[in-house]
Amino acid sequence: MDEFDLIRRFFVRDGVSAVSAVSAVRAARGVHAGAILGPGDDCALLAATTTAAARFAVTTDLLVDGLHFFSDVDPQTLGHKALAVNLSDLAAMGARPVAYLLALVLPRADTEWLEAFARGLHALADRYEVELVGGDTTRGPLTIAITALGEVDPADALRRDRARPGDDVWVSGCLGAAAFAVRERLRGHPLPALHPARMRLEEPVPRVELGLQLAKLSKQGLVHAAIDLSDGLAGDLSHILARSSSALGTSVGAVLWAEALPSHECLTGLVPADRHDLMLFGGDDYELLFSAPSTARGVLERLGGLHRIGVLGAGPELRLQDGSGGERVLPNRAYQHFRSESDRL
Amino acid sequence: MDEFDLIRRFFVRDGVSAVSAVSAVRAARGVHAGAILGPGDDCALLAATTTAAARFAVTTDLLVDGLHFFSDVDPQTLGHKALAVNLSDLAAMGARPVAYLLALVLPRADTEWLEAFARGLHALADRYEVELVGGDTTRGPLTIAITALGEVDPADALRRDRARPGDDVWVSGCLGAAAFAVRERLRGHPLPALHPARMRLEEPVPRVELGLQLAKLSKQGLVHAAIDLSDGLAGDLSHILARSSSALGTSVGAVLWAEALPSHECLTGLVPADRHDLMLFGGDDYELLFSAPSTARGVLERLGGLHRIGVLGAGPELRLQDGSGGERVLPNRAYQHFRSESDRL
Repeated sequence: MDEFDLIRRFFVRDGVSAVSAVSAVRAARGVHAGAILGPGDDCALLAATTTAAARFAVTTDLLVDGLHFFSDVDPQTLGHKALAVNLSDLAAMGARPVAYLLALVLPRADTEWLEAFARGLHALADRYEVELVGGDTTRGPLTIAITALGEVDPADALRRDRARPGDDVWVSGCLGAAAFAVRERLRGHPLPALHPARMRLEEPVPRVELGLQLAKLSKQGLVHAAIDLSDGLAGDLSHILARSSSALGTSVGAVLWAEALPSHECLTGLVPADRHDLMLFGGDDYELLFSAPSTARGVLERLGGLHRIGVLGAGPELRLQDGSGGERVLPNRAYQHFRSESDRL
Repeated sequence: MDEFDLIRRFFVRDGVSAVSAVSAVRAARGVHAGAILGPGDDCALLAATTTAAARFAVTTDLLVDGLHFFSDVDPQTLGHKALAVNLSDLAAMGARPVAYLLALVLPRADTEWLEAFARGLHALADRYEVELVGGDTTRGPLTIAITALGEVDPADALRRDRARPGDDVWVSGCLGAAAFAVRERLRGHPLPALHPARMRLEEPVPRVELGLQLAKLSKQGLVHAAIDLSDGLAGDLSHILARSSSALGTSVGAVLWAEALPSHECLTGLVPADRHDLMLFGGDDYELLFSAPSTARGVLERLGGLHRIGVLGAGPELRLQDGSGGERVLPNRAYQHFRSESDRL
């Protein structure tokens, strides 16, 4: 089997016709951009199906064996996750997923592995009607690079650089479960495959619908800045602070309230210091973190599943306030892939 | 240095402002799409700068150490080539390059290496005014995945599936030099760095302008199908034949004239069988191969640098005709990365 057969067999379901079918469904709804030409040519072709100018958000994420996932990972969950982390970036921008490209480096052409990987990938792609429009496959150490494109009006896009002092800090869902699953595995106590924490690690659900809702609120000035949580709350919030500080020309800092952080139920038995570490520095949560003016509290509370966890203010620091009002400055650290190989997993 | 610093330091020149500056230049010309928001957010934002709907061609290509390049490659030429192979795909679609994303897996954060790689990348990007709008960097075995986006009206796009029996087969430039450089290296006689054949291998020039010219001719029905030569003439022409056969519902074959194949001057001393092998199965030429009706001969000859090398007809086969009229069927083989590690290099 050559590389072209491989791509076609596992990733392109009915070739161009499948792409056309999905695009037709989208066009009938009259809203989405879509693919005119899918895999098999030199490029895919994307266009708006409405007369409005197409506006694309585009992102790429790498997953490397042993660094972003354990080598014995179930390939079906790996297929899911490789796409999910990219859809999470689109969600953090308030973009509706349209299409993706898959660059896949594989040590060998293993049919069983490829079938499972493709199954996980397609199931998530179908859920959000996002089309595989191109890719490249080659031999080498297992590495996955997906590029995803979504449609968003730049005026509504959830950027990182729009936070303002006085904003509330909000986060969706709950935190720390994926990091807990990694920690238990590294300590020699791997969680069972269906443990909720392990599922959070291996099959994260990108907050696509929430991103679209927040983009609408952004248009009304009710959401300011947003990011998705991939590297840990502290590091990701620091990105918002740094970019917003640059944009404003003045330092923006934050205070987070330790007791307001929404911990996953699997962290219940841990001592607070451990729990907070997993939530603040753990990574792989794929929730949305955003800032909003206090006038948005009512509408955000009605959305459900959101937690107000702190407030932005002047000054560059990111601080954590405990229940008794004591504060400590949090290190501005995200996962650093180059510091050591064990940083990520 | 963490991964974010790395990306910023070597690949993002002046952050958002650099992107804005390039976009402003493009907008002033009133024609191109561009980036509204570059690296540093969850996604880049791309939009048309005119009121017409933005139409994007998008492609991704992988380069893996030891398979697509020798491990001791000059990083500056590697930066050039990683982008060039993607721009070549855009050229083969008749698209004008707009933006690219870089997914880079590196074994270590080596400043000297990164500086050189970025230099090669930026020099080519500047030449075509294509912007780096996003990326991801992580630790692991050296692997580069670039995704490039270009603007093209789908009505003009140079697709692979539009060839017709009776079309002439044309190719730009000359063939076989890159494969010759690889062969000499594998035989233990590496060519000097500035040898023309080695430069063809390491610093291919994507045929962007030619692609744009052919797209204009395509609109007038004077060019039918096109592909860029990455895996070797025989294999790449087979892609055109296969896709056009599917689209037409009838087999399209080709006859190539051995004596019309434009060989690079460095192949002059070789016996014909060797020369033809390098030109037909060699790969890495990054010229454009296309089909056109005979009515286009005059206009294509006036473009210069193009060679008419055969003709399309009925039947599935790809045949090579020698000077005395003898014919042999060419195997439909392209480089097959999974057949063995030495297939590509």
